[in-house]
Amino acid sequence: MPQTPHINRRVLLAARPHGKPVPQDFRLDETPVPEPQDGQVLLRTLYLSLDPYMRNLMNAAGASYAPAVAVGAPMVGGTVNRVVASRHPDFRAGDLVLGNAGWQDYALSDGSGLTPLGDMPRPSLALGALGMTAFTAYVGLLDIGQPQPGETVVVGAATGAVGAVVGQLARLKGARVIGIAGGADKCRLAVEELGYDSCLDRHAPQLAAHLAAVCPNGIDVYFESVGDEVLDAVLPLLNNHARVPVCGIIAHYNDGAPPAGPDHRPALLSTVLQKRIRMQGFVILDHYATRFADFRREMGEWIAAGRVKTREDVVDGLEQAPDAFIGLLEGRNAGKLVVRVAGD
Amino acid sequence: MPQTPHINRRVLLAARPHGKPVPQDFRLDETPVPEPQDGQVLLRTLYLSLDPYMRNLMNAAGASYAPAVAVGAPMVGGTVNRVVASRHPDFRAGDLVLGNAGWQDYALSDGSGLTPLGDMPRPSLALGALGMTAFTAYVGLLDIGQPQPGETVVVGAATGAVGAVVGQLARLKGARVIGIAGGADKCRLAVEELGYDSCLDRHAPQLAAHLAAVCPNGIDVYFESVGDEVLDAVLPLLNNHARVPVCGIIAHYNDGAPPAGPDHRPALLSTVLQKRIRMQGFVILDHYATRFADFRREMGEWIAAGRVKTREDVVDGLEQAPDAFIGLLEGRNAGKLVVRVAGD
Repeated sequence: MPQTPHINRRVLLAARPHGKPVPQDFRLDETPVPEPQDGQVLLRTLYLSLDPYMRNLMNAAGASYAPAVAVGAPMVGGTVNRVVASRHPDFRAGDLVLGNAGWQDYALSDGSGLTPLGDMPRPSLALGALGMTAFTAYVGLLDIGQPQPGETVVVGAATGAVGAVVGQLARLKGARVIGIAGGADKCRLAVEELGYDSCLDRHAPQLAAHLAAVCPNGIDVYFESVGDEVLDAVLPLLNNHARVPVCGIIAHYNDGAPPAGPDHRPALLSTVLQKRIRMQGFVILDHYATRFADFRREMGEWIAAGRVKTREDVVDGLEQAPDAFIGLLEGRNAGKLVVRVAGD
Repeated sequence: MPQTPHINRRVLLAARPHGKPVPQDFRLDETPVPEPQDGQVLLRTLYLSLDPYMRNLMNAAGASYAPAVAVGAPMVGGTVNRVVASRHPDFRAGDLVLGNAGWQDYALSDGSGLTPLGDMPRPSLALGALGMTAFTAYVGLLDIGQPQPGETVVVGAATGAVGAVVGQLARLKGARVIGIAGGADKCRLAVEELGYDSCLDRHAPQLAAHLAAVCPNGIDVYFESVGDEVLDAVLPLLNNHARVPVCGIIAHYNDGAPPAGPDHRPALLSTVLQKRIRMQGFVILDHYATRFADFRREMGEWIAAGRVKTREDVVDGLEQAPDAFIGLLEGRNAGKLVVRVAGD
């Protein structure tokens, strides 16, 4: 069923997942479209962003940067919205805004957290190549990873929404860029479309040996968003003074408990010590105030000049969001995953 | 048997240890004192430094910063020496120098790596409070840890050669300083002599709960030189944007293989990510060119003013070095462990 003017479809968290989310952890319901009060706007959702961090918010503990989604509440998420009706002085009906309406057709907002998008020709880019995920790549790679010309950069999830931008920015900065991705199709995409010098299939046997072969000068920056066997392959190749921005560990988001041994923590610490590694976690919310304007300007120029490609994976229909999100955690998408909730 | 003018006693690596070193891994032998050739000096050892990094060099793989000691070769180590005879233009008989003569009474040197010590009244300090270990504390805490006034600093090995200085420098910078050490005696020493606000026994039950109780505002800097259950207790208490200089992981130096599970690596990465931790390994050799002069000046002033205490644990006799070193890895010492090889 498509979006309609009087019914608000919402995707609720039906149950906290045990390990991998399943369709039964979500529930689609319908409520009346709410009425804005004084100081509020009514938003209609055009695009919904689906991102791995949402898996953390399905757990009772939530995450350090955001509370858990309550069972029975709509899933949260970044959105591109049209203002349908406004009783807020700063917004008018028809405005295009970036918001956090979550997994639903309509939402009320008091204006906080809304960013006007003007008449952006491809508004979904505000969720990806000009939004959070590319900004994550920008801060993580440039500010923390600091690749130098001629250095080797390895991207753990080469064709994900973040990784696809990391790879392109690393090349743009003059680094050699090696990707790791799930499956031959993604590896081809990484090399042919995104400009990776080489891309290895994460699931192929002997990943460590293949990675060593394509990194003859070692690894200077490892952009970590996977963990697990990808990290196993990377660690022995890190050069002295390598930088490891930690953006995510998607291989572990579905872990219910610490995985079986052996314990790899001592070996990780030993590598950090002996090779003088700087490993640094970051949460992109911290960086908007200081770096978003720089990002928006530079990235806009790079996209306009064709130096960065904006790869999107668009799914049609709010009701497809749970399946698309489950697929995201399995690595089914390539590029930024967005749900087209409604035509404009 | 004490040092004599014509016999060079040496402690050799007899066998590579499996796990904890045992006395049979070392062998004391005697050779004639060598004769310096043109461009060489003959050094007599007064003090030998014993440090945990030596354990890594007993393994066939060595370490990133130094090759393995060959089986049958003298153990390596920093030393304070008198020049006995010189055929080198820059040195004269009688000069006091800092060198790397290793575990033996005498050694030849071509002068490279020798640092004149002038007429230093307590020359053993050149191995500790004015030498490598305190310099390690200085760079690790001040340059990497960067404690701010009012922050909480936790020192994993509070009374070790490095930790004893870390704790004092952290206090000097206005931080609250919590130590962890092995046993009640060391904890008392940490508080009463070294000025820790509190110190917990690493082996006491419920370390994590006790640490939480003495860190009501969380932990901003964790100076890591232990690993294992100390790190387990620290991780949940780290604040957002905490810094973790990684100086060593002494709890794991005797590990022959990765310890049994569960695998704590994913949880460590998750903490690094969610709390935006900067974890950074360092090897002190990298920092002499840029920071040693600053250290030597500042530390000299702090010691002279009584603001930093120079705690030493002195063992008499080269033949005691193996047992003292085995004890070092078990945490038997408090303060900088040095062997007085000979009177001056």
